Parts: sequence; structure tokens; C-alpha cells
Amino acid sequence: VRHITLLTDFGTTEGEHAVMKGVIWNIVPGNPIADLTHDISPQNILEASLVLERTVHYFPPETVHIVVVDPGVGTSRRPIAAQFGDQFFVGPDNGVCTPLLERAERENKTVEIVHLDKPKFWLEKVCSIFHGRDIFSPCGAYIAKGVPLKELGTPITDIIRFHRPTPKIREDGAECEVLHIDYYGNIIVNIQREDLEGLRPMKISIGGAILDGMKDTFGDVPEGELVAVYSPTDYLLIAVRNGNAAQRLGVRRGDPVGIDSTQT
Amino acid sequence: VRHITLLTDFGTTEGEHAVMKGVIWNIVPGNPIADLTHDISPQNILEASLVLERTVHYFPPETVHIVVVDPGVGTSRRPIAAQFGDQFFVGPDNGVCTPLLERAERENKTVEIVHLDKPKFWLEKVCSIFHGRDIFSPCGAYIAKGVPLKELGTPITDIIRFHRPTPKIREDGAECEVLHIDYYGNIIVNIQREDLEGLRPMKISIGGAILDGMKDTFGDVPEGELVAVYSPTDYLLIAVRNGNAAQRLGVRRGDPVGIDSTQT
Amino acid sequence: VRHITLLTDFGTTEGEHAVMKGVIWNIVPGNPIADLTHDISPQNILEASLVLERTVHYFPPETVHIVVVDPGVGTSRRPIAAQFGDQFFVGPDNGVCTPLLERAERENKTVEIVHLDKPKFWLEKVCSIFHGRDIFSPCGAYIAKGVPLKELGTPITDIIRFHRPTPKIREDGAECEVLHIDYYGNIIVNIQREDLEGLRPMKISIGGAILDGMKDTFGDVPEGELVAVYSPTDYLLIAVRNGNAAQRLGVRRGDPVGIDSTQT
Repeated sequence: VRHITLLTDFGTTEGEHAVMKGVIWNIVPGNPIADLTHDISPQNILEASLVLERTVHYFPPETVHIVVVDPGVGTSRRPIAAQFGDQFFVGPDNGVCTPLLERAERENKTVEIVHLDKPKFWLEKVCSIFHGRDIFSPCGAYIAKGVPLKELGTPITDIIRFHRPTPKIREDGAECEVLHIDYYGNIIVNIQREDLEGLRPMKISIGGAILDGMKDTFGDVPEGELVAVYSPTDYLLIAVRNGNAAQRLGVRRGDPVGIDSTQT
Repeated sequence: VRHITLLTDFGTTEGEHAVMKGVIWNIVPGNPIADLTHDISPQNILEASLVLERTVHYFPPETVHIVVVDPGVGTSRRPIAAQFGDQFFVGPDNGVCTPLLERAERENKTVEIVHLDKPKFWLEKVCSIFHGRDIFSPCGAYIAKGVPLKELGTPITDIIRFHRPTPKIREDGAECEVLHIDYYGNIIVNIQREDLEGLRPMKISIGGAILDGMKDTFGDVPEGELVAVYSPTDYLLIAVRNGNAAQRLGVRRGDPVGIDSTQT
Repeated sequence: VRHITLLTDFGTTEGEHAVMKGVIWNIVPGNPIADLTHDISPQNILEASLVLERTVHYFPPETVHIVVVDPGVGTSRRPIAAQFGDQFFVGPDNGVCTPLLERAERENKTVEIVHLDKPKFWLEKVCSIFHGRDIFSPCGAYIAKGVPLKELGTPITDIIRFHRPTPKIREDGAECEVLHIDYYGNIIVNIQREDLEGLRPMKISIGGAILDGMKDTFGDVPEGELVAVYSPTDYLLIAVRNGNAAQRLGVRRGDPVGIDSTQT
């Protein structure tokens, strides 16, 4: 079985996310489908790429991830499908899959991308504002059924890459920023474990507060105190133990975070 | 396999929607189940019927749709099950299935309806305020298992029809109203493609703004501008490209929308 | 097939709840999984235990319930798995499963509990702040696959019990409190059918209002009126027919509810 996941900004009130399951089950009856989330902020490619990055690699080999966060629907942006390592991606060509592409490149794994330009794999009638239902769902289902990418479309290599804000890393510190505020109010900073490990010992300044280095886990500070740990995907994460760090510090996406590792 | 869908106004915080899956899986283990949505506004039959209309026909033949938006639970309203065309419906008799019924009638397809009056297909103990769990879920599961409707209940024909506000269509225009504001803030108007195609060229007036005719897709206007297109289910849809039309125009369900096709 | 359910306070925006399905499907491909809810208030063990109590017993025998509401993640609290009657539980040892444990004890059914202390059943790399992904999901999946509890961990008996506020029951009444406000605004009171049946006839006082005894169902009062009925899990439930009782009465969790059964 090739599992399928869905990631959209459709919300779950309208049933549009569910229609995708109907279309898929017409092609692969009863195929297992997981909702990664449908609560991406409208058209927010950064948020969607963060969810992909933290979820995709935990799914079984050959899982098909259908991703429809699509500010360009109804323009000439291309529908694409791809294999990155052992996972499949289907969605608009807007850079949302960049973390999957770059990880496959970094690890010298398979990268195969096609432009979905064969209407015989689409629904018969394609609505110009709902490619999620009419193009991406049936194409994803055919991949789950075992149809090779090269039958679904024409090979391409020039897809769009989406670049997140990068930190400025110096020998004695780094200038970072808030990448994301999660559901708990934890603050995700745009720097990862591998960048930080050269910088210890260090002080982290954010929203007027200063934290003294990384801890291993929440339990290393008392309830209600600020703590910096590595997130489950190895980002710098600033939390309040059993509390809401973003509210406490009043920070938002894009706000500056300083790392200082001078030893004075 | 006969797929099952669930549509309720239970929300997803209490687990009541999930109990339905437990009850179903006791009768048909592992049967695939999709949540259409559980976020219908409490007791809002219009909203639920719109979700049904835009989703049901994309599911495989013989899918069973269990719909529990039930302002009449705990009164004498009847529990029913039906086959409309190649899809099954299970839920209270309150008109929520009218779009499915009328489509089947219009297309001369199967219409078979039963009053679910055989307690041997219900849970042993029926709670007077939770027929979704105790009557509709097990009856839906038995349909998925292949039990014929006529075993589950007594045939009836006099079910309730729910009528939406209809537009007043003239030769040179129409008086419509806002039927629904969707998750994105797009405005769904109570008139469809087939009614509008006789009226071109036309001006659409809503919330103090005037739009100049229908476009094919969002990409036909610049970002942030108002646009009128057909929705994926062929309703007149007014949007702001990558924005929120309902907020922009300050309109709500029931507000007037004018269509003027006089050529001056 | 052993079905699996998930209950967390992760929300559904981040994809963390979905990662659990990926981990599970690596071990038991395509296994059916239902989301009980992911919308528990952060770290709220009472809310989670109420959802468990009202859902678990409607699932097929041998269903595995993975529950991750875990204020103690990153402390020394133990990960556990258990069989209570014919249902399996996996999660942190924090008392959330107390209703399942006590029901099994009350009914003289199987109670078998293990401390999940065998890392060979965990993901290779365990993140100190995401045991839901790295310990509970794989262990739950192995139970679904048929691995006996005693292979997954060391038997224990001293798990934490979480006690809800209990009512003070007298011969002529009771002093209760609001246990929960549900999605509809219905008020769940911490007293059950078996306690109340000795107290009739009675008056129920809450938030300045007085209700005159229990009704069988919502339909026994006019639209918009207050009514007291038994909830689907036999708690005293105070509702407004097709309305929001908690808003009407301005009550919150913990507020007092009086039962007076003196006959004057």
C-alpha cells in the first residue's frame, strides 16, 4: 500500500478537503489517507513547508503527499509531481516542497520531477479555481496506484525554490529571527542544532529577555519559566514550561533573536 | 468496499464525532471513513446542505453519507435512510438532503427512502439526545455492510424538503442574495451558472461595489482585486484574489446581490 | 484488525498529530486510525479523561487508544501501556486513564499495566519533548500488531490516579459543581444518573436559575428554554434547547450547582 497525506489551507468547514478523499477513493478504493493539516494560514507557503519538513520523513516509504497551498491557482503556475528520496510530492510549483528537494539533494537521493500536463489523469471537467480536487487529487491517487511519474507528466528540473530567511552566523554569535509561532505559543527560531553547536556557551536574547544557553528538555526549568531547547526537528525552540512563550514575550514572526557566545 | 462519510455540527473537541467511528467499526471493522466536516454552525441545515451538495457526488458509487445536523433530536422527527442516485444518505428527516433528492429526481435516478424504525439495527440503549451515535451510525454501518434499505426501515415518500432562498430572475437581470460566506471569505451567491449564462453582459452589485461581469479565474484580475467567477459547484462566487471578500465588502448571509444585464 | 485512536492536546495546525500516523503506518501499514480529538486544552488532564470516558467503550474490542496530554514530558514521569477490560491504553502516567482503570476494577475486568521501558520498541532517536511521536506511537502500533504488553515493558501496579471533584450527596440533595462546558455550551455537572435517581423530585439551582427536575429529552421544553437531562454518558447535563446554556447562565468550570430534593 502507498499511503497518502493531504496538506492544504482549505480549513475543514467547507468539505473541500474531504472532496479530495472522494476523488482519491474513486481511483484507489479505501486507500489510507492522513490529513497533515488543513489549517495553514491562507496561501502561506512558509508555514506549509515547515509542516512538510517536520512530518514527511516519518511516513512509510513511497507515501504520496498532496500539498495544495496555492496562491497561484488560476495563473500559469505549473502543477507538478515529484519523487524526493523515497517520498512522493504532488502540488503546485511554488516552492513549498523546497525542504524535501534540498534534503534529497544533500543526501544524494532520488530527485525526479514532472510537469503534470496529461489531462487524461485529471477529472474530466477541471475547475480553474480548484486544482486540488480536479488535478492534484487524481494524480496523487494514480501515483498511489503505481503509475510512474513519467506517465503522468513531462520531466522538468527548473522548479521554483522558496528560501526562508537565513540567520547571519558569526564566530561569536548569530543574528536570527522568529520563523514560526506554534500552536502552544512556542517560538521556532530560524537556526538549527548543527549551526548552534559550534557556538556554546551562549546567551539568547529575544523580546527583551535573555536565556542562558540550551537545556535538554522542559523539565530542566521550573513550571512557568522560559527555556530554550531543540525542537523535534532540531530548530532552536523557545518555550515557557507548560505556558505560552510568544504571549509572554510579545513576539511575532520575523522578530529578531540574538545569539551571543562571547565568554565574558 | 462501501466508503462512509460523516457530516455533523458536533465540532471535534468532545470526541462525539469519533464515537461514531467506533460504533461503525464494531459492525464493519476498518471500514474507510472520511469526515466531510464537523464544523457546521450548530443546527444550521442550510450550511450542511451546501457541504453535501459540493462533496457527495465526488465520492465512489454506494458511499454512505451519515449526516447529523439535528435541531429536532429529542422530538418526533423521523430518522431516515435513503438512496439518491448511486449514493446513500442516513440522518434525520429535516430537509438537509434536499439537494441530493432533487438532483436524483432531475436526473431520473433512483430515489428510495425508508423510515428507520427497526430498533434491532440500533445500539441496544438509545440516548434520547444522541441519535448520531445510537441510530444513525449503526444503520449507516449496516448499509455499508450491504443490508438493503428495506430491511432497515419502512419505505416512505413524504420527507421534508428544505428550500433555500431563490433568486428573482428577470430578462434583464436578477435579484439575488448572499447564500454563504466560506472559509476564505469568498461570497457564495444563490444563483448558478445555468441561470446566469442567459444574462450576459452584466454588472454585479454587492455591498456598494460593482463588478463588471464574470471572469474565468482569479488570475484574470490583479492581486487584491474583487473578481466574480463560478464556484467549483457552479454558484456565482465573489472573491478578492488572495484576500477576503466578505471582510472587504462587509457583507453577511442574506445581504442583497444585484445582477444587471441591460446593455447601456 | 486492532483499531487505533489518537487523543492529544497538539491541535491540528502543526502536523504533529499526523506524524503519529506516519510512525504507526511504518509498523502496521494502513491500520485504521481515528482521531478522538486533538483539541484538548493544553495539558488539561480532566478534559482528556472526560473524552476518554465517553468514547473508549464504543470502540471494538482490542482497540488501542494512544493518549498524549502530557504536562510532564521531559520529566521523570513514566510512559505506560495498559489493558483495561477489552481496551488498550498507551500514554504518560498522569492519571488521564483513571476512568478506564476504575471501570475495569468496578466490573472485575482485566487490568494489566506496564512501564514502557524497552527502547527497542521506540524510534531510534527519542526527542525529549516529543514522546508522542517517538515512544507512544510506535508502542501503540506494536500493540496493534499483536505484541504482548509484557514484551513492551515491565509490569507495574502503582500508577497515578486522577480524582475529579466529587459531589457532596445528602439524603435531601447534593452540592455539585460544573465539570465541563461542551462545544455547544451545554453544562456537564459532576453527578451521574445513579446518584440522582435516589433524589427525585428535585430542583436544580445554577447560575441564579432554578430548574424543576430532569426531563427525558430536549423536546420536552420549548425552543430556547433551559432543560436538565442525562448526558450520553449519564452525567447531569444542563442545556438550552437549540441554544447555549453556559452563555445564558454565565457559568464556568468549577461553579456550584445545587440539587434540592426536599418536597415542600
